[in-house]
Amino acid sequence: RSNLKVFTLNSNPRLAEEIVEQIGTTMGLSSVKRFSDGEVQINIEESIRGCDVFLVQSTSDPANEHIMELLIMIDALKRASAKTISVVLPYYGYARQDRKARAREPITAKLIANLLETAGATRILSLDLHATQIQGFFDIPVDQLQGEPILSRHFNEKGLEDLVIVSPDHGGVVRARRMADRLKAPIAIIDKRRPRPNVSEVMNIVGDVKGKTAIIIDDIIDTAGTITLAADALIESGANHVYACCTHPVLSGPAIERIENSKIEELVVTNSIVLPEEKNIDKVTQLSVGPLMAKAIINVFEQTSVSRLFN
Amino acid sequence: RSNLKVFTLNSNPRLAEEIVEQIGTTMGLSSVKRFSDGEVQINIEESIRGCDVFLVQSTSDPANEHIMELLIMIDALKRASAKTISVVLPYYGYARQDRKARAREPITAKLIANLLETAGATRILSLDLHATQIQGFFDIPVDQLQGEPILSRHFNEKGLEDLVIVSPDHGGVVRARRMADRLKAPIAIIDKRRPRPNVSEVMNIVGDVKGKTAIIIDDIIDTAGTITLAADALIESGANHVYACCTHPVLSGPAIERIENSKIEELVVTNSIVLPEEKNIDKVTQLSVGPLMAKAIINVFEQTSVSRLFN
Ligand SMILES: Nc1ncnc2c1ncn2[C@@H]1O[C@H](COP(=O)(O)O)[C@@H](O)[C@H]1O
Ligand SMILES: Nc1ncnc2c1ncn2[C@@H]1O[C@H](COP(=O)(O)O)[C@@H](O)[C@H]1O
Repeated sequence: RSNLKVFTLNSNPRLAEEIVEQIGTTMGLSSVKRFSDGEVQINIEESIRGCDVFLVQSTSDPANEHIMELLIMIDALKRASAKTISVVLPYYGYARQDRKARAREPITAKLIANLLETAGATRILSLDLHATQIQGFFDIPVDQLQGEPILSRHFNEKGLEDLVIVSPDHGGVVRARRMADRLKAPIAIIDKRRPRPNVSEVMNIVGDVKGKTAIIIDDIIDTAGTITLAADALIESGANHVYACCTHPVLSGPAIERIENSKIEELVVTNSIVLPEEKNIDKVTQLSVGPLMAKAIINVFEQTSVSRLFN
Repeated sequence: RSNLKVFTLNSNPRLAEEIVEQIGTTMGLSSVKRFSDGEVQINIEESIRGCDVFLVQSTSDPANEHIMELLIMIDALKRASAKTISVVLPYYGYARQDRKARAREPITAKLIANLLETAGATRILSLDLHATQIQGFFDIPVDQLQGEPILSRHFNEKGLEDLVIVSPDHGGVVRARRMADRLKAPIAIIDKRRPRPNVSEVMNIVGDVKGKTAIIIDDIIDTAGTITLAADALIESGANHVYACCTHPVLSGPAIERIENSKIEELVVTNSIVLPEEKNIDKVTQLSVGPLMAKAIINVFEQTSVSRLFN
């Protein structure tokens, strides 16, 4: 596989190292620094002419810095004559700005898709896109991996009993359904309602949670407001234990404090986003998507190589 | 001019206000904030359907933040049915990455041009692009304004005598020549040479500076290393006074300290980039490009309107 090259940028170097190890190759040599005025300075330090390059970067906080690094690196790879440039985006930043919720808003998730293609990306490999529609924002192939099996396996290995899988909103039911099938459990749905304007939301639970161990599953946990209130509502409705899990631990602002002080016993996440090291995050278990991503990279590489044999 | 709208982002709101005042209009209403995780949240708060929009933003430090704000705002303007979107870039960040100086480097100045067009910019209005070639990176019209007349006027009004205009390198001679013509003075050129590898550069002065008042002119002053060493070399060669000027005061890292401790008596710059307020910058005089930019905007607007009458 001498034509397969993996490069990393600054958002998630440890995950990239894991991927490289799993594949059995070494990390592509590059230098990603800053000029004195903060502009990104990139140099690729080995030949990649004619290679299939996989570039690993999550566009997590600081999203703008990580996106610009990514675009500039793609430009450098393109100009250095890479044959293909597959962008491995464990976390796709700006995914929630995927539609105009109000008049005269941008659709930044689509803009990012256009920018990646303009820079020279030829394929996207991502994990649990906030909306599956984002695939359609691209005119290049998009492979979407799923974190749910990894999260489910963790709970399965814990040997928890009498489970109920909870979707924190109506948008997440398909994901909860998938986990419920895998763990052979029923589902419940948190039905948020605002009885009157300027009155706080009421969390109504659709489904039976009494005496059960609830696992809330979401794709992104950001400020953790919804999920911690959902945990309260589940306990009030008679659940014995509450666990939570998500693919992308954005965990901004008060998130970690809220989770530590909540009724959630354990929050299980993937390493699509690096967790802040300095914070006290006792309740959080982080599982690696390295093997999953490595397998996907090998698949893509071998498909491309095979299809080239027949062309 | 009810179809002319000016909007600003966060890099240089005071310059944008000056432009709006000069034009005799009001600032376009928009909200540019951050979500909890740092992602840019933009909303345009008035109708711009069918309008000619001018969007003011310098892509100065933090360049990546300012560029992403700009791209997202262009996307929002486009989706809100602006007729034209002219990007007013007093300072064009990444302009120095305009060629591959080494193998496998990006050409970020070209990438930025592509990104702006992809987002939806229909015209660029900039000031002293580091290389005139950057105009050719765009497939849309680029108007380039010049800071030199504003800088020259300042020195003319000071009534300095026996001047010599100094270019700090061979690349800047055309700019120095223009100032010299306007101020009716001769020019000199700093000729940097490294006698042997790993030996520090020698600054040789081509031209006569003895007993004269030297004005060094450059487009960008960044860390101010070159310009302060040039000042030393000019004094050593017999110049009585040294002034310096540039269009874009990047002034990163040790720049301000170096200038304050240098032989330079006054550094004259424009407000294409906002200077840090907290620093002690006694020697720096900042001149406004507001009137210049306002005039250019009105010209572009009237040209576009007139040409529409004939189409
Ligand atoms: N980074 C962000 N943080 C919080 N909310 C966001 C962010 N980006 C977009 N949104 C908003 O989240 C909403 C979409 O979220 P969802 O309903 O979960 O798809 C929209 O109203 C967006 O304006
Ligand atoms: N932000 C920056 N700060 C310092 N040097 C830069 C920056 N961007 C590009 N360069 C380098 O500056 C050189 C071009 O400068 P110039 O010769 O003045 O056009 C190239 O070698 C670039 O790699």
